Amino acid sequence: MTPPLRIVPLGGVGEFGKNMIAIECEGKILVIDCGLAFPRDEMLGVDLVLPDISYLLERADDVLAFVITHGHEDHYGALPFVVRRLNVPVYGSRLTLAFAKSKLDEHGLIKTTEVNEVSADSKLSLGPFEVSFAAMSHSVPDALAVVLKTSAGTLVHSGDYKFDHTPIDGRTTDVDKLARLGQEGVLVLLADSTNVEVEGSTGSESQVGQAFHQIFAEARGRVIVSSFASHIHRIQQAVQIAHLHGRKFAIAGRSMIKNVNIARNLGYLKVPDDAMVKLTDIDDYPPEQLLILSTGTQGEPLSALSRMAFDDHPQVELVPGDTVVISAKPIPGNELSVGETVNRLLKAGVRVIYGAETGVHVSGHASREDQRMLLNLLRPRYLLPVHGEYRHLYMHKELAESAGVPGERIFLLEIGDVLELGERGGKIVDKVRAGRVFVDGLEIGDEEAVVLRDRQQLSDDGILIAAVSVNVQTGEALAAPELVARGFLYDEDYQQEVLDEAAAELEDRLQELAHEHVTGQRLIKDDIHEVLAQFIYRRTKRQPLILPVVIEV
Amino acid sequence: MTPPLRIVPLGGVGEFGKNMIAIECEGKILVIDCGLAFPRDEMLGVDLVLPDISYLLERADDVLAFVITHGHEDHYGALPFVVRRLNVPVYGSRLTLAFAKSKLDEHGLIKTTEVNEVSADSKLSLGPFEVSFAAMSHSVPDALAVVLKTSAGTLVHSGDYKFDHTPIDGRTTDVDKLARLGQEGVLVLLADSTNVEVEGSTGSESQVGQAFHQIFAEARGRVIVSSFASHIHRIQQAVQIAHLHGRKFAIAGRSMIKNVNIARNLGYLKVPDDAMVKLTDIDDYPPEQLLILSTGTQGEPLSALSRMAFDDHPQVELVPGDTVVISAKPIPGNELSVGETVNRLLKAGVRVIYGAETGVHVSGHASREDQRMLLNLLRPRYLLPVHGEYRHLYMHKELAESAGVPGERIFLLEIGDVLELGERGGKIVDKVRAGRVFVDGLEIGDEEAVVLRDRQQLSDDGILIAAVSVNVQTGEALAAPELVARGFLYDEDYQQEVLDEAAAELEDRLQELAHEHVTGQRLIKDDIHEVLAQFIYRRTKRQPLILPVVIEV
Repeated sequence: MTPPLRIVPLGGVGEFGKNMIAIECEGKILVIDCGLAFPRDEMLGVDLVLPDISYLLERADDVLAFVITHGHEDHYGALPFVVRRLNVPVYGSRLTLAFAKSKLDEHGLIKTTEVNEVSADSKLSLGPFEVSFAAMSHSVPDALAVVLKTSAGTLVHSGDYKFDHTPIDGRTTDVDKLARLGQEGVLVLLADSTNVEVEGSTGSESQVGQAFHQIFAEARGRVIVSSFASHIHRIQQAVQIAHLHGRKFAIAGRSMIKNVNIARNLGYLKVPDDAMVKLTDIDDYPPEQLLILSTGTQGEPLSALSRMAFDDHPQVELVPGDTVVISAKPIPGNELSVGETVNRLLKAGVRVIYGAETGVHVSGHASREDQRMLLNLLRPRYLLPVHGEYRHLYMHKELAESAGVPGERIFLLEIGDVLELGERGGKIVDKVRAGRVFVDGLEIGDEEAVVLRDRQQLSDDGILIAAVSVNVQTGEALAAPELVARGFLYDEDYQQEVLDEAAAELEDRLQELAHEHVTGQRLIKDDIHEVLAQFIYRRTKRQPLILPVVIEV
Repeated sequence: MTPPLRIVPLGGVGEFGKNMIAIECEGKILVIDCGLAFPRDEMLGVDLVLPDISYLLERADDVLAFVITHGHEDHYGALPFVVRRLNVPVYGSRLTLAFAKSKLDEHGLIKTTEVNEVSADSKLSLGPFEVSFAAMSHSVPDALAVVLKTSAGTLVHSGDYKFDHTPIDGRTTDVDKLARLGQEGVLVLLADSTNVEVEGSTGSESQVGQAFHQIFAEARGRVIVSSFASHIHRIQQAVQIAHLHGRKFAIAGRSMIKNVNIARNLGYLKVPDDAMVKLTDIDDYPPEQLLILSTGTQGEPLSALSRMAFDDHPQVELVPGDTVVISAKPIPGNELSVGETVNRLLKAGVRVIYGAETGVHVSGHASREDQRMLLNLLRPRYLLPVHGEYRHLYMHKELAESAGVPGERIFLLEIGDVLELGERGGKIVDKVRAGRVFVDGLEIGDEEAVVLRDRQQLSDDGILIAAVSVNVQTGEALAAPELVARGFLYDEDYQQEVLDEAAAELEDRLQELAHEHVTGQRLIKDDIHEVLAQFIYRRTKRQPLILPVVIEV
């Protein structure tokens, strides 16, 4: 009897969570990707979202390695937090590892982490897994699909991908290898669902170059192109086409400077001689000879582009005649902040080129027709849609069914589900601890933490503190209660009036308590809370967090 | 010399603010619309956003009336807050007033407010304004454009509109009247910019009926159609087509029940005999004979649809076989919550029909081609793009320029700008106090209020309170300081550890202070704040709001 294959998604902001997926065979575990996510608005004050690796720590002795599909933070960004607790080797392509190592280095973990470079042609043997790869096109160079041959059958993880027949670096998605894998037989495919709401085929990266040509031809002043810092091909096109139009370039934004550096050193980015100038030197060049590359496509408040838009950038002051190109799409949830950036840019008098119809962006993910193509190439027995919220996975399932994959062989997993694929078919056999943990300041916390509920209440109606000093023996108040509020009422005079009334009410109640010989912090606090909560709601129709503080003297 | 015309936008969430626009001529003011807005995420805890009417209050004796273009809350919803401070007559069409009166009634203001019904054919004389109207199609029936003939020339305010040549009620946008106005000469047009990012023409409302026909024909279980509660034509189509397919209907959602009631009573909504059943009786009918109309297209947490999706609706428990139609588009900013509703619905096993490609929604606003059409009909001397953020106004300006309106006759105003149109042209001559005020509980507050900054800080890192009881004469602490935190650290033990250390640090400092004979609340508080802020940031890398409370005994 052949051993089963187990697949366990372990982290992500969406339902399924492509950030980290554990694959188990013959008692050994290989983990594909180790990414982080960025918090949503409702995760108040949270800095980063990591996968909960409790399950991997429990099985620490069985975990062989992390294999990273490509160099985006949602696929490698959790490594610094994870490898200090689970120090296993990391595999990835050259550029992917270069980005990952730079992050590990920031955390002082570069020396203690074993990283192993692979290419699309590599073959590794890791315990029961024969690991190989296939080149895939994506919005970062050097992306890989991961192929795991096991005694249970072959697993293919597409990674994030698209089919690009005219890529900037000539490295197309290896349809030939995928077709051969399909001929040999694929047990299960884990496939990128991101663009399942988009009909048709995703355009080639080189289409963006056409839009850039026209923009550089028309622009009379400086051109500022903002894109993702990891989108080396986009940057390559901007730099190269700018060069053809007689423009040098400078870079604004820490992460883009870093990534351009890495990509140049490794040969992923080719920069014409003398084409790059320092941002501090841009005023030495005429505006029509300049391109400025910049971060900030998502309207992030501290990004280079936002700072330019709000007239707060130390080197780049926008002037009428400048052209700003936003060469990306807003990630869901960022629409308003991107819109606000555009408003500000237009007010500064610059020309702004953004949005789907301008041709300055194409997606890095397969659309519906591409997803059907991948299914036809690989003809997997089982399918796991990967990435996104439930509706994306669900639509991917519908798409695959209409392409001939029987519904009962398509699994929509939630984080922590253990899917077992064996001789008798596939089945969810267990649920392990998994999910999200939050990085907040120096702390790593639980997503269920009461702290977030408190922050929610604080952000709605503020807080009211009632401090009283009581005699520890008699419970008598030693002075008038001190009431302080923050984030509560708008009008200071009105607030003082309400607080004065509340203090009077409270003082009466404290006298009653002392009269009834009630002592003890707990009882007094509960009473203060009740009296104030009722009074405040009646008086203002608000429900601030009410916090009694009792000092016993 | 003819007197000038003055136009002053007074409120809105966007830059320009279509919610309220004051028109002044010969010293008298007519106000078009009196709407509210809904708060954005960053307006923490705010319930509603109103226009700041300081300017109108200053000029109270000169304000003649409010004219309401149509029955959407962003055009009439501020009336209850405004008429109590500025009690002037309100004009509007029959349905618009019916909605507005229902709101005034909720606030007990129906008897003290003069409301005057007008129709598309009405002509009024209000001071220096000859007021007439034109029928416009929109996503609520009975919408009007407002025409003001003055000694300075003719002003046309389009209101929110589209061109619908096959509207549900047969009442098309009155292109004939608009063309005649154009022939007579229009000084200035205030035109709806909402859909200026959308190329082409907006489809007819009746197109949605075709999609509904197919859905009802295919559905085997119940059909739940969610739409805006004021979208009477959408509701009309759902009810009528359901009836053709042998379905009765019930309504979920307070606002929709109310609006359907109003629209039926006034004859705007025609319901077949016996077609309507109570929501509490739906289980008496087979699922294939039922339509449920529902609110909740924006994923609002307390709406009927959200409660169904989260299995929390008292009457409607969704089951596989049900079909849910989301017959609207997410308003920018609501994408994530609408997405989450869809996720939940799919998990409940129901079929969900949503999104642009399904044909279950068309916009109520003119697209670019329609906007060009309006310009060609009216051929205004001056143009004011109305509604939206700066980029929408800006694009509307570009569109109008390419349609032949000279750029110097197109004005992009900000809230509070006073545009004067006189014999010598148009010019911004003043800036008056205007903007947004917030309704929060029972209070109406200022948008610059420090309260919102406090809430922001509270929501990021929580709060730390340090209460100390000191001898009023000597400044000596009478007991150990009491430190309490909320929304601060995730781990309780860790938090206690940090607070204990902070308390020790603080105690030392208080002894020093007493030693140095420092007394007085202010000084002690400042000192406590400094000591704690430094310690806490060093120890946790967070910056909670730090609030010292000193009780002098």
